[in-house]
Amino acid sequence: MKTTRVVQKILSNYEGEAPGVKANLARILMEGKLGGTGKMIILPVDQGFEHGPARSFAPNAAGYDPHYHYQLAIDAGLNAYAAPLGPLEAGADTFAGQIPTILKVNSANSLMSGTAGKNQAVTASVDDALRLGCAAIGFTIYPGSDMAIDMIEEIKEMRREAADKGVATVIWSYPRGEGVTKDGETAIDVAAYAAHIAALLGAHIIKIKLGTDHLMLPEAKKVYEAQEIDIATQAARVRHCVQSAFDGRRLIVFSGGAAKGADAVFDDARAIRDGGGNGSIIGRNSFQRSRADALDMLGKLVDIYKGKA
Amino acid sequence: MKTTRVVQKILSNYEGEAPGVKANLARILMEGKLGGTGKMIILPVDQGFEHGPARSFAPNAAGYDPHYHYQLAIDAGLNAYAAPLGPLEAGADTFAGQIPTILKVNSANSLMSGTAGKNQAVTASVDDALRLGCAAIGFTIYPGSDMAIDMIEEIKEMRREAADKGVATVIWSYPRGEGVTKDGETAIDVAAYAAHIAALLGAHIIKIKLGTDHLMLPEAKKVYEAQEIDIATQAARVRHCVQSAFDGRRLIVFSGGAAKGADAVFDDARAIRDGGGNGSIIGRNSFQRSRADALDMLGKLVDIYKGKA
Amino acid sequence: MKTTRVVQKILSNYEGEAPGVKANLARILMEGKLGGTGKMIILPVDQGFEHGPARSFAPNAAGYDPHYHYQLAIDAGLNAYAAPLGPLEAGADTFAGQIPTILKVNSANSLMSGTAGKNQAVTASVDDALRLGCAAIGFTIYPGSDMAIDMIEEIKEMRREAADKGVATVIWSYPRGEGVTKDGETAIDVAAYAAHIAALLGAHIIKIKLGTDHLMLPEAKKVYEAQEIDIATQAARVRHCVQSAFDGRRLIVFSGGAAKGADAVFDDARAIRDGGGNGSIIGRNSFQRSRADALDMLGKLVDIYKGKA
Amino acid sequence: MKTTRVVQKILSNYEGEAPGVKANLARILMEGKLGGTGKMIILPVDQGFEHGPARSFAPNAAGYDPHYHYQLAIDAGLNAYAAPLGPLEAGADTFAGQIPTILKVNSANSLMSGTAGKNQAVTASVDDALRLGCAAIGFTIYPGSDMAIDMIEEIKEMRREAADKGVATVIWSYPRGEGVTKDGETAIDVAAYAAHIAALLGAHIIKIKLGTDHLMLPEAKKVYEAQEIDIATQAARVRHCVQSAFDGRRLIVFSGGAAKGADAVFDDARAIRDGGGNGSIIGRNSFQRSRADALDMLGKLVDIYKGKA
Amino acid sequence: MKTTRVVQKILSNYEGEAPGVKANLARILMEGKLGGTGKMIILPVDQGFEHGPARSFAPNAAGYDPHYHYQLAIDAGLNAYAAPLGPLEAGADTFAGQIPTILKVNSANSLMSGTAGKNQAVTASVDDALRLGCAAIGFTIYPGSDMAIDMIEEIKEMRREAADKGVATVIWSYPRGEGVTKDGETAIDVAAYAAHIAALLGAHIIKIKLGTDHLMLPEAKKVYEAQEIDIATQAARVRHCVQSAFDGRRLIVFSGGAAKGADAVFDDARAIRDGGGNGSIIGRNSFQRSRADALDMLGKLVDIYKGKA
Repeated sequence: MKTTRVVQKILSNYEGEAPGVKANLARILMEGKLGGTGKMIILPVDQGFEHGPARSFAPNAAGYDPHYHYQLAIDAGLNAYAAPLGPLEAGADTFAGQIPTILKVNSANSLMSGTAGKNQAVTASVDDALRLGCAAIGFTIYPGSDMAIDMIEEIKEMRREAADKGVATVIWSYPRGEGVTKDGETAIDVAAYAAHIAALLGAHIIKIKLGTDHLMLPEAKKVYEAQEIDIATQAARVRHCVQSAFDGRRLIVFSGGAAKGADAVFDDARAIRDGGGNGSIIGRNSFQRSRADALDMLGKLVDIYKGKA
Repeated sequence: MKTTRVVQKILSNYEGEAPGVKANLARILMEGKLGGTGKMIILPVDQGFEHGPARSFAPNAAGYDPHYHYQLAIDAGLNAYAAPLGPLEAGADTFAGQIPTILKVNSANSLMSGTAGKNQAVTASVDDALRLGCAAIGFTIYPGSDMAIDMIEEIKEMRREAADKGVATVIWSYPRGEGVTKDGETAIDVAAYAAHIAALLGAHIIKIKLGTDHLMLPEAKKVYEAQEIDIATQAARVRHCVQSAFDGRRLIVFSGGAAKGADAVFDDARAIRDGGGNGSIIGRNSFQRSRADALDMLGKLVDIYKGKA
Repeated sequence: MKTTRVVQKILSNYEGEAPGVKANLARILMEGKLGGTGKMIILPVDQGFEHGPARSFAPNAAGYDPHYHYQLAIDAGLNAYAAPLGPLEAGADTFAGQIPTILKVNSANSLMSGTAGKNQAVTASVDDALRLGCAAIGFTIYPGSDMAIDMIEEIKEMRREAADKGVATVIWSYPRGEGVTKDGETAIDVAAYAAHIAALLGAHIIKIKLGTDHLMLPEAKKVYEAQEIDIATQAARVRHCVQSAFDGRRLIVFSGGAAKGADAVFDDARAIRDGGGNGSIIGRNSFQRSRADALDMLGKLVDIYKGKA
Repeated sequence: MKTTRVVQKILSNYEGEAPGVKANLARILMEGKLGGTGKMIILPVDQGFEHGPARSFAPNAAGYDPHYHYQLAIDAGLNAYAAPLGPLEAGADTFAGQIPTILKVNSANSLMSGTAGKNQAVTASVDDALRLGCAAIGFTIYPGSDMAIDMIEEIKEMRREAADKGVATVIWSYPRGEGVTKDGETAIDVAAYAAHIAALLGAHIIKIKLGTDHLMLPEAKKVYEAQEIDIATQAARVRHCVQSAFDGRRLIVFSGGAAKGADAVFDDARAIRDGGGNGSIIGRNSFQRSRADALDMLGKLVDIYKGKA
Repeated sequence: MKTTRVVQKILSNYEGEAPGVKANLARILMEGKLGGTGKMIILPVDQGFEHGPARSFAPNAAGYDPHYHYQLAIDAGLNAYAAPLGPLEAGADTFAGQIPTILKVNSANSLMSGTAGKNQAVTASVDDALRLGCAAIGFTIYPGSDMAIDMIEEIKEMRREAADKGVATVIWSYPRGEGVTKDGETAIDVAAYAAHIAALLGAHIIKIKLGTDHLMLPEAKKVYEAQEIDIATQAARVRHCVQSAFDGRRLIVFSGGAAKGADAVFDDARAIRDGGGNGSIIGRNSFQRSRADALDMLGKLVDIYKGKA
């Protein structure tokens, strides 16, 4: 596999990291239509765990079959496909080697209430990722939850084991829980903090939500105002998050949230591109559309990241 | 052991799985009067743990003896017999090799109250299953309980160990606990969600309860209505659950609940058959009847699954 | 060591069990004056842990010395002596090989309050039992306590380890805790349930308390009445518990409770004998009497179990 | 090292114990001015952990230096010096081999409140004791605390490991917590119970506080009165505690509590001696005095234990 | 590497410690402009974890890049650079061998509330420290928190593993939590207690905050007054903390807290020097200034510790 200069430059930021991890990052970065550009689009399909099957797949019933998502990611020329254990296994033979996969190793669900609703269950292991030939594991932390310490200590162990075995780690850093208000979950100070925590924990790829111009933490608000940090536009906010990820030394991708109009998705992508982010992780907005619509939309996103749209 | 095309087709869905696991699934699918059809009837006897001995066995006192159930499952030509450690051990020599067994590795009881009543104790290990020659382990999760994360993490570990040792995993996915109303325990959105979670966790055989046409989760309800998902008949509801189990890529069987009239049991089986489910797991409705009545009823169920009744 | 047909018949019920475990059960069953009859009297001395030294030993101060109990069990011709780590060690050299010992591996105490009072501390290991040459370990569970799941998971591990090392397991199954009323602790439905749970967990010898004709669980009560289960006499209640222990496939002994008149002790023993139980485990009623009185009483109990009194 | 008959007699009570443990008990019993008498004086310096440095050492500022205590114990001809990890390490080279040491492996502090204040943190390991050449580990349990089960299970593990490695175990058995009133902490029924629990757990040396004539547990009170147990004098109470430590088969030493007048310290020692106890463990009453005063006092205590004062 | 007499004297206080640990202490003590003097200035950059990226780095945006801090510590001639896993990795190749590093292995964050806010998550391991070539691990404990027992038991394990692998341990001992008032966090009795606890736990370098003349614990207050302990000046309070760290046998450095005027920073350093402390650990006060100002200030601090300012 040949790598581009852009990718080599990105890999050089992972100082002291195991060659196997760098090789797997390269596999993801060199895959698909954005291969070699340093930009990525990843298809994540874990909403069945979070929201149940009907809410996830009824709008486009082909998605009940795990094979559908593998094929969509391949046909759209994406960089990677991320899913929990069951769906990855369900296509493990059919699609072996056809696209880099990310094993989502923890998950929450909408049936739990109370404290348990602030945590995720670990549902797969690093060895599962190896057995299934995955390029990376994906792990969610909830900074702000009373369970955050447990989650951080879990990913600390799994990240170490994964790196020792040449597998990269993607951290979904989603502020949530007792210490975070509803607006705060997407406040820009909190989003940047979430990106920073993931970087501090040694994430190779950081996944956060796009932030709003709200500021949640009073102590942080004072600093944003005093230092006149630019958070006026989405691109500016992306730039602030990139800065918070070791000044751009770590790959950072953004999720788009609930299904919405294609134009809004495109606007998000342009902001990510303009702010220096590394791409989109885009689930419901792709697999809840018809296959034709999804391929159209993903093709347009590729163009945006290539600077053509 | 020869396998049929139907069974080979089913096994091919377990992509990337260990050959030992597939062989044990084949043992169960090829056993008894339904052997080779892709349909199954399983006898589970763990009600003594859940409800105590008298409530379980006094209606047919022969059932106090664990040998009775082994013999009933064999004579009725069922696919497998599932029980906790003690009863399986109690006939381990006498019935060795005569029927596939499933070691139920966790259990609850009616004496506990409070939080503890939302959880199950792990009472046996994968190595116990190996030592006793079992084809599978059986594990209950309570999605919706505050203890669900612990249960999911336990089965994650045990499933992995079992698969590494060539033993299949059956997950009893029974929504229950703080996040689930009484009606919700059998609501169809919850039942389908329960099946989906078991599939996501990598269950080889999924066991759920038949669902009603109730919808518990408000967010899900909107989708069921907007997408006009057919949940009007029991067969339609079974079909929805099959779809939620990776669009039929995973074996799914249904339990019948408390003892009831034979006709109701037959109606359930016809709905399972017509909806594309893989069979029944039927405990109290068999062993609380006299042996003669039970054999009659199980024979009739076989006919139903064969499409003869 | 020769074994009798009665003992061989009992051992044959432990299907698939390790020969070392069977050998240790045989050691206990062939020991002392009841050796070979299938009946047992066991001396347990863990009341010092549960109630403190003065309440346990002041009535017969010789009992402060652990040697006293070893000697009493030997001189009375009992089947085994059960005690925690400290007292077994205190006579480990002097009495090595003179009587089978059971290492009580968990204990509670009267100083704790609250939640902790519903649990027991593990105070010794299977390897301690091996080192001290014990025939079995003894473990208490409190079905009905919120801590029951922890206790069950502990004994699950220890029983497995013990069996792998050829050591038998005695489970003290004492319903207690949040889910059990004071009367319920000895209600016959609860006692039978306790025996059944111990059997399900794989106990080789089950120890429960004698039950009263009270019924605690409403759902169970209906069944006892509908099925007209005979619980009118102590012998009938013992028979019901024997039935609940896999229809007599597991050894079951009964404890006598607090110190009481000798006649009451004898009546209990006759009921155990007539109901098909395997014997008595009798602590305070023996060691709180003078040595002479205790030897008299234990001699009489032997006669009862032999059918001579 | 020659041992006396008295010491040999004591060692013979540790039946079945590892020779390494007996050798370390002999090292302690043969050390210093009381060497060979079966009596002991031990210097414990863990008050810095419990009360902070100023409350512990300001009255005699030389005590801030860990070397001071090593030297004091050596010069006073004591049997052993007990301290946490840090202070033992601080003199590990300088005083290697000059006096038996006891590594205190758990500790509490006065800064914690709430539940945590009823527990101790494990601060060192058995391997630390080996590395530092210690003769024993020291471990505190709080019978009566809701955390007692955890503490008991910790010492169960550490005691086993220590014995396997030839290191003796001293248990500080200090009733405290939710189940114990303030007066109850030194009530004689509770003190005797504490000694008994330590013996049951397999302690080689038991450390308790001297008891008052108060009785805390109502059930125990009845027995003390009915059996007319003599608790009128301190010597009688010591005798009762000795009896509760397996009728004198286990070494038992008593702590003196807060700093007080020398005469009170001497009276305590005479009572310990007359009641058959094995000695004093005396901290603040020695190191908070000036070195000269401490040496005087400790010399007088030696005389008392030798029966000369 | 040659060592000075002063450093050799310091190392000799670490009796019985592994040569690898002493070598790493020597690496730190011999590094930079204060090399060989027994004094240290350490740059810690973990505020991004504690306070988020903007509050930490916006005042001097160069600090978003982890390379900035490595370079600042090197150019200022400091003794060591301390940071969490992510930032140390981010410069692991570029700066390998250029300055001793301390891997901060646990961290808290400002997003958590409630109980979790009284604890820190372990975010890296001793093996991470080895892999990254660190001279020491850094670990924070919160004496006074209900989680202190867990934290103490964690550092007990990590310190042992680190020492066995030749890595030194720095303990950040920061009183906080339910048992400590706001004023109490810097009360001198509490500060001295914090230093003492770190020493008892075996810290090689102790990091505490400078104390005020407030006294929090009533029992301690009595002793400070009765013994007339000098806490009137900052230098006197430093001296008392040094005394509490085994009478100067352990290295102790002081942190300066929030950003403040340079003169206040210099006054603190003079007090540390005059009271016999071993130096400063100075984060926000250096990296939140411009690089030029920071180098000026750090140069002046070096002069103060050398007695030239």
